[in-house]
Amino acid sequence: MSSNELANRRIVLAARPQGRPTPDDFRLEQTRLPTLADGELLLRTLYLSLDPYMRNLMDEAGTSYASAIPIGQPIVGGTVSRVVVSKHPQFRAGDLVLGNAGWQEHAVSDGKELSPLGDMPQPSLALGALGMPAFTAYVGLLDIGQPKQGETVVVAGATGAVGAMVGQIARIKGARVVGIAGGADKCRHAVETLGFDACIDRHDPLLAARLADACPKGIDVYFENVGGEVFDAVLPLLNLHARVPVCGFIAHYNDHAPTAGPDRLPRVTSAILMKRIRMQGFIILDHYADRFEAFRRDMATWIADGRVKAIEHVVDGLESAPEAFIGLLEGQNVGKLVVRVAQD
Amino acid sequence: MSSNELANRRIVLAARPQGRPTPDDFRLEQTRLPTLADGELLLRTLYLSLDPYMRNLMDEAGTSYASAIPIGQPIVGGTVSRVVVSKHPQFRAGDLVLGNAGWQEHAVSDGKELSPLGDMPQPSLALGALGMPAFTAYVGLLDIGQPKQGETVVVAGATGAVGAMVGQIARIKGARVVGIAGGADKCRHAVETLGFDACIDRHDPLLAARLADACPKGIDVYFENVGGEVFDAVLPLLNLHARVPVCGFIAHYNDHAPTAGPDRLPRVTSAILMKRIRMQGFIILDHYADRFEAFRRDMATWIADGRVKAIEHVVDGLESAPEAFIGLLEGQNVGKLVVRVAQD
Repeated sequence: MSSNELANRRIVLAARPQGRPTPDDFRLEQTRLPTLADGELLLRTLYLSLDPYMRNLMDEAGTSYASAIPIGQPIVGGTVSRVVVSKHPQFRAGDLVLGNAGWQEHAVSDGKELSPLGDMPQPSLALGALGMPAFTAYVGLLDIGQPKQGETVVVAGATGAVGAMVGQIARIKGARVVGIAGGADKCRHAVETLGFDACIDRHDPLLAARLADACPKGIDVYFENVGGEVFDAVLPLLNLHARVPVCGFIAHYNDHAPTAGPDRLPRVTSAILMKRIRMQGFIILDHYADRFEAFRRDMATWIADGRVKAIEHVVDGLESAPEAFIGLLEGQNVGKLVVRVAQD
Repeated sequence: MSSNELANRRIVLAARPQGRPTPDDFRLEQTRLPTLADGELLLRTLYLSLDPYMRNLMDEAGTSYASAIPIGQPIVGGTVSRVVVSKHPQFRAGDLVLGNAGWQEHAVSDGKELSPLGDMPQPSLALGALGMPAFTAYVGLLDIGQPKQGETVVVAGATGAVGAMVGQIARIKGARVVGIAGGADKCRHAVETLGFDACIDRHDPLLAARLADACPKGIDVYFENVGGEVFDAVLPLLNLHARVPVCGFIAHYNDHAPTAGPDRLPRVTSAILMKRIRMQGFIILDHYADRFEAFRRDMATWIADGRVKAIEHVVDGLESAPEAFIGLLEGQNVGKLVVRVAQD
């Protein structure tokens, strides 16, 4: 089979979402792949990662770290792929690789930005517990949050790909860990499966009071990955010298217009001053060169020891990706959301 | 003269200010001082420091670092005093001391928290260029802001006690320094006297555009001491990995009710994330033990070398303090505002 005969199914950005994405913003289409040139390889996608940052790249402005997805082009995304044909000296047919092939069943690659995965027994973990989301948790929590033994760490999205890892790593470091998650089932999962000390339902009308009860000694580290009302509940509980690593704001990713008042900024900046808070944003792409090896070594050990549980939420088929992604932004998954695009 | 015969004039908090303080919130009164006990000393105030933080202590809530001033009690404040009578083994009549005697002409002290000033030739500098405000600039700029050679530093209140020092220290460290100040006269002072590279009038309706013009390479350090509209103009100009030491918010000190919308917080937190910004509050009281000696050594050298100019705004007489303080919150002073309470 030569690559120029190969039909490829892919999902492109049909329209820029206005606020929350809808199925009409995506289009499944069939194309043909170009002939492989020397130095290129043909990849078959096994697993596609779905992550909140993709929503930012659907807006025309893009982000500081990546430009917007052009209309009509495939949605970007991390992938685990099998090499089908290789005209590249460093890869052979059959190799398992981590890359960014995006929302499509096949891709042609020049080999740059591909990482060999060897014979990894559960390769989807390269997109989750041994990949970007857990690495985000590791760097944000340990390098910026710096929790000490006996301190209290709070994280929202407690059962999501990042939050679940923040909580589990914080427990390993001896912190008291309080999660926030959407609904009683998720909260039970956070406590019973992931080992959080407590977990509060973010839909609870008494969220602020429940969080205060669960944090009798205040909050030393708040890993910010959701924004919105959770942050309002956290703010008055932050201790002197609290650290707030800022990783994302799912609550605002679908914001279209400026948010109505009152203006919450003065209250936040006043707390930053009075409580000597350090609030620091980070983008995980900046940290691979320095920290990824340490992360992979630590995390592999923790998973092997059973100290970290790597929970996945797997959906089948490329065509399931839009609906699963829309659900991700609404918190419908438990664990790392991946699409199994093809059976290996 | 024994201390129990001594009449004392002092200014007490008559009422908690609702928003901006008015003269009616203060009351000048005459009292008698108690007899000195063993271990106590009688102080005569020479200079009283007026600083924005005092406004926070007039609110019922107080702050995280000091409790509210009780109604009917003297306003707190840093002072340079002469020891009149001493029953304390470590001080003698005639000693010059730095302390916190507050808004009054005399005070009885137990000697704690008094620092001897020796024969300092211009003792009011202990309240400004060699004291708390300049130390605030030093710690915030150098320890949190960490400006590098060739980076751009922006500070508002550029001609005030803290801002003037931030700019001058940043110049010494090789940064480009852009000030923001209220009015053309102050801006000229910042550039011509203090050596800022540029200074923008904060009343200029084109503030944001002027600031952008003055910062062609963006902003690496924004020393936050005013809040409000200045921060809105600064935010889009912040560079990747910018640092924002947070020292105070004069623009909000008189805020009474929650500020109207739109809610500026999502835009700020999104910038913190996308630009990997570090925003960190600090209260200068935390840093005396570790950093004051280094500050005093550096600053004395810089003043002696003429690299730092110590500008003061002196008003005469305790009775002038309320009006001068109200003016301070509206930016009417140039340089460190001190009240000369008594001729030495």
